[in-house]
Amino acid sequence: MTQIPSPLHPPERLLCGPGPCNVSPAALAAMQRPLLGHMDPDLLDLLTEVISLLRIAYQASGGLVLPLQATGTSGMEAGLAHLLEPGETVIVGVNGFFGRRIVEIAGRLGADVVRVDADWGQHVPNDRLLEALEQHPGARLMCVVHAETSTGAQHPLAELGAALRGRDVLLMADCVTSLGGVELRVDDWGIDFAYSCSQKCVGAPPGMSPVAVSDRALARIDARTHPVPYSLDLTLLHDYWIKRPAVYHHTAPVLHIYALHEALREVAVEGLPARWDRHMDAGRFFQHEVRSRGLQVLAEPDHQLPQLTAVRVPEGVDAKGVQTRMLRQHGIEIGGGLGPSAPSMWRIGLMGHNARRDVAERVLSALDAVLTEEPAFAGAA
Amino acid sequence: MTQIPSPLHPPERLLCGPGPCNVSPAALAAMQRPLLGHMDPDLLDLLTEVISLLRIAYQASGGLVLPLQATGTSGMEAGLAHLLEPGETVIVGVNGFFGRRIVEIAGRLGADVVRVDADWGQHVPNDRLLEALEQHPGARLMCVVHAETSTGAQHPLAELGAALRGRDVLLMADCVTSLGGVELRVDDWGIDFAYSCSQKCVGAPPGMSPVAVSDRALARIDARTHPVPYSLDLTLLHDYWIKRPAVYHHTAPVLHIYALHEALREVAVEGLPARWDRHMDAGRFFQHEVRSRGLQVLAEPDHQLPQLTAVRVPEGVDAKGVQTRMLRQHGIEIGGGLGPSAPSMWRIGLMGHNARRDVAERVLSALDAVLTEEPAFAGAA
Repeated sequence: MTQIPSPLHPPERLLCGPGPCNVSPAALAAMQRPLLGHMDPDLLDLLTEVISLLRIAYQASGGLVLPLQATGTSGMEAGLAHLLEPGETVIVGVNGFFGRRIVEIAGRLGADVVRVDADWGQHVPNDRLLEALEQHPGARLMCVVHAETSTGAQHPLAELGAALRGRDVLLMADCVTSLGGVELRVDDWGIDFAYSCSQKCVGAPPGMSPVAVSDRALARIDARTHPVPYSLDLTLLHDYWIKRPAVYHHTAPVLHIYALHEALREVAVEGLPARWDRHMDAGRFFQHEVRSRGLQVLAEPDHQLPQLTAVRVPEGVDAKGVQTRMLRQHGIEIGGGLGPSAPSMWRIGLMGHNARRDVAERVLSALDAVLTEEPAFAGAA
Repeated sequence: MTQIPSPLHPPERLLCGPGPCNVSPAALAAMQRPLLGHMDPDLLDLLTEVISLLRIAYQASGGLVLPLQATGTSGMEAGLAHLLEPGETVIVGVNGFFGRRIVEIAGRLGADVVRVDADWGQHVPNDRLLEALEQHPGARLMCVVHAETSTGAQHPLAELGAALRGRDVLLMADCVTSLGGVELRVDDWGIDFAYSCSQKCVGAPPGMSPVAVSDRALARIDARTHPVPYSLDLTLLHDYWIKRPAVYHHTAPVLHIYALHEALREVAVEGLPARWDRHMDAGRFFQHEVRSRGLQVLAEPDHQLPQLTAVRVPEGVDAKGVQTRMLRQHGIEIGGGLGPSAPSMWRIGLMGHNARRDVAERVLSALDAVLTEEPAFAGAA
């Protein structure tokens, strides 16, 4: 006879890792509202509102915009599965864990993958991506990670979009950590497929993956000869989220939709430029303070995201031990390096509701206390 | 400039359609607990508890049991994508919308699909499934819908499992509407892949798809030559949910996991036989009352699920109008027929927290009031 576990009592945490961050109070409260069925006319009206709010967040007026009921990784898979057919060539900029994941998924889909690599913490120069395109003129898709969650590096996406304008290749961007935190303009920059998540700079709980698909990407999807995964099928999702009368596809995660609605409302009410500024202010303050303590930041300064800082672990310091003491003694979550090939680092995020100087100060003061107990660091400082 | 929508204010609903049902209060309250990160040691402990609770609910002691962050349909897709390789033969029992969906997804995966059809509301006789297996001895997988959500028909699953024992074909069962509501014994019945959802008889909000995979299905998966979809990859999900130290795969929907934990606790505390009895009592009471009003039930009596009743719409009655008035005048959601080929029906569910006679009585009394306004029915009665 298995023992039945007790009711859960998770401890309070300040979530300053690479995400999730603490949920915006309004988004969290919305999840206690009465549950509607997934075909309820009142819910269908809410879906329409969520889409109009997502269009603001993505700055995307055309194409198809909707949230998948999925993680950011499913958003990545949805994009690759819709925009690539077996044997087609895709060029992928790889400068961290999530670029590698794009390579892995594209490979599973039978695509011919051309990697353009850069070191962890560096960005992938657009010139090298365009060079790869010269060498593979039949490439159907180019993928970059706008905000590499494993390093804190930001891709110069506007410039890449401009350089690709008028060319037949589609542009896909991983915006999991960028949406709502730094400038992102799907229309103006010519992004054909952007995917993100709900739990980082948007400020909702983890569980949704908003995507934005351009009209020319939709035309490409219409012309496919191989089927796409049923549960990610954008045509069927369109018929539920947008077509009226709505056609059932799956039972939508209604409470997550409530939370996303409220979180996106906050994004719109705050205004994107103000929100981007707030993330910039908190992040730059934090990064300045980190450097002033003699710590090094992984990403190159010109391509450093404000909302996510990868701090190099000083030699001789117990990386995991510091993370654990931050959590256990101070109730603060920070992240570690992602995957076995990552350099030793802590990943510290100031995102969404947590993108504030007072939160940065709480993290810094706990980090100071914890590092004092590390002989290797205390000795060096 | 898009107008920013107001904060959401969904109305109260008694959810007695085919699901979601009203969330158990304890499960809903759990979603307000402090959010933990997806790699937090305290969350990882909770994952382990969720799995031990799921094993109780599924009566599955071996193999792999975990909840996908996905809808029931993604659970269906995960099963088919793991257990079929292109060109392999699958036998599918089809007696409603969800059997058809299995056919559709298996077809997209390149499988050779053998359909065994029965009319809507009928069950697919096991003899006919076994006959199909005689004719296609190389079939790798047989799929049936334990509880056909589009009709309320129940498959004699225990008997099918017994008949297939010792044969090389795997058995997959759609348990979306059955888990937690009627007898289901994955181990004893020899089910190789069961998938379900969180929002019906389990009593949690929509957003998770618990699956149970047998050891021999896992061996089949290990021997695959074609890759599976990355976001549904059970091997990678195992390494996050079960392997310790956990390996990151995706950012888990933490609040949904909280809710599922509490809902499954309630299942375990109530005890499966008591919970099945409660669903049986409420459902049989409701069905008796429906018939006593001169209304007909779609499913054949010997294979009628207690928790979901498809009521035939009497001739001349405005099916959609009745549904709308139930919703608008009485705050009660009931479902309609699913898909254009469904017979005209209302689908009424008494599931999870709502599987009670007092809820059944509220539905009946509202239905009486609404039907009185229908001249065709009022005249006939």
